[in-house]
Amino acid sequence: MFSQLPAVERMINAFRRLPGVGRKSAERYCLHLLTLPEADALEFSDAVRKARESITWCPQCRNLTDTTPCAICSDPRRDKGTLCVVERPAGAMALEKGGNYRGLYHVLHGVLNPLDGIGPDELHIDLLLKRIVSDNFTEVIIATNATAEGEVTAAYLARRIGDLGVRVTRIAHGVPMGGGLEYADDLTLAQALDGRSVISRER
Amino acid sequence: MFSQLPAVERMINAFRRLPGVGRKSAERYCLHLLTLPEADALEFSDAVRKARESITWCPQCRNLTDTTPCAICSDPRRDKGTLCVVERPAGAMALEKGGNYRGLYHVLHGVLNPLDGIGPDELHIDLLLKRIVSDNFTEVIIATNATAEGEVTAAYLARRIGDLGVRVTRIAHGVPMGGGLEYADDLTLAQALDGRSVISRER
Repeated sequence: MFSQLPAVERMINAFRRLPGVGRKSAERYCLHLLTLPEADALEFSDAVRKARESITWCPQCRNLTDTTPCAICSDPRRDKGTLCVVERPAGAMALEKGGNYRGLYHVLHGVLNPLDGIGPDELHIDLLLKRIVSDNFTEVIIATNATAEGEVTAAYLARRIGDLGVRVTRIAHGVPMGGGLEYADDLTLAQALDGRSVISRER
Repeated sequence: MFSQLPAVERMINAFRRLPGVGRKSAERYCLHLLTLPEADALEFSDAVRKARESITWCPQCRNLTDTTPCAICSDPRRDKGTLCVVERPAGAMALEKGGNYRGLYHVLHGVLNPLDGIGPDELHIDLLLKRIVSDNFTEVIIATNATAEGEVTAAYLARRIGDLGVRVTRIAHGVPMGGGLEYADDLTLAQALDGRSVISRER
């Protein structure tokens, strides 16, 4: 009966398109919204619509923004010489939450993946290279994710940006802070060993 | 930066009000909706609004419906002599999915809970009793959940409905089908023993 209501079925299907939401969770969310006071459910719908309508991509860094350019690109206190390249807005968001990075960002909105037809053109790498030259960045930090595609993209960007004579760095991969060695997977341990640094005073 | 965008913060807060959705999941859903094509995000918003606007409570059984009365109440093939009382629309939905119940439903939209100020008036028990009398039900199955409040509500309804001279039954509680004894909790095992039935041929 419930799923025979077309309006409800449409809502359930809309929720199922969210990442990690299956049929059961979608039904639970929908039942909740249908038993809320109508004003609360409409507030939910309106919040989604307003956000999607007001949020665009910053023309400079391609991060999500409600101003042009975005708050970070136009903040005079940011370090204009350092650029951090991330796969998605979530990556920039995570770094901002950490609060330790003061440079600018560039969001690729994806990674190189030839099988899915994602090449340098789809990620608009030419825009990134032009920006690096025109804005005189002195260091570009590649912070793509530690996946196969993320590493390939990092290697590709290192070559293209290095050709411009700009210093390219990669964020460190290793054992997470607070994490015991016994919980880290083999690949992470290998990265942690490879990326070891000297801590004794060097003579 | 991301959470400094008021429209995004509003959307995240709207998602956090869904059952079982925390800050991290809400951010993930919102980022997904913000990077979708705009039409898809607006479809999501519209599906929620349309559903909430078109779905009401059936005046007879108080289940969710887009018609008056609902499809089950108006279905001539249903058994009009049997009524199943559930706490929430999700309960009726679960029974309908099972496909073994052919009677009608009554949704309480809650359980008796004096500490939260939920009494017989808040659950409109008088409407339920009137319906049982006027529609000549011969059996009322109480299918409130197997929680303390659900059991109290079941006992209360059994007394009130029994006073009308109508047969009142309770769904069985015991070890789930396919579940081993070793996975059932003590309370479930006690219920399973209490509710045992004779399977040998009785002379």
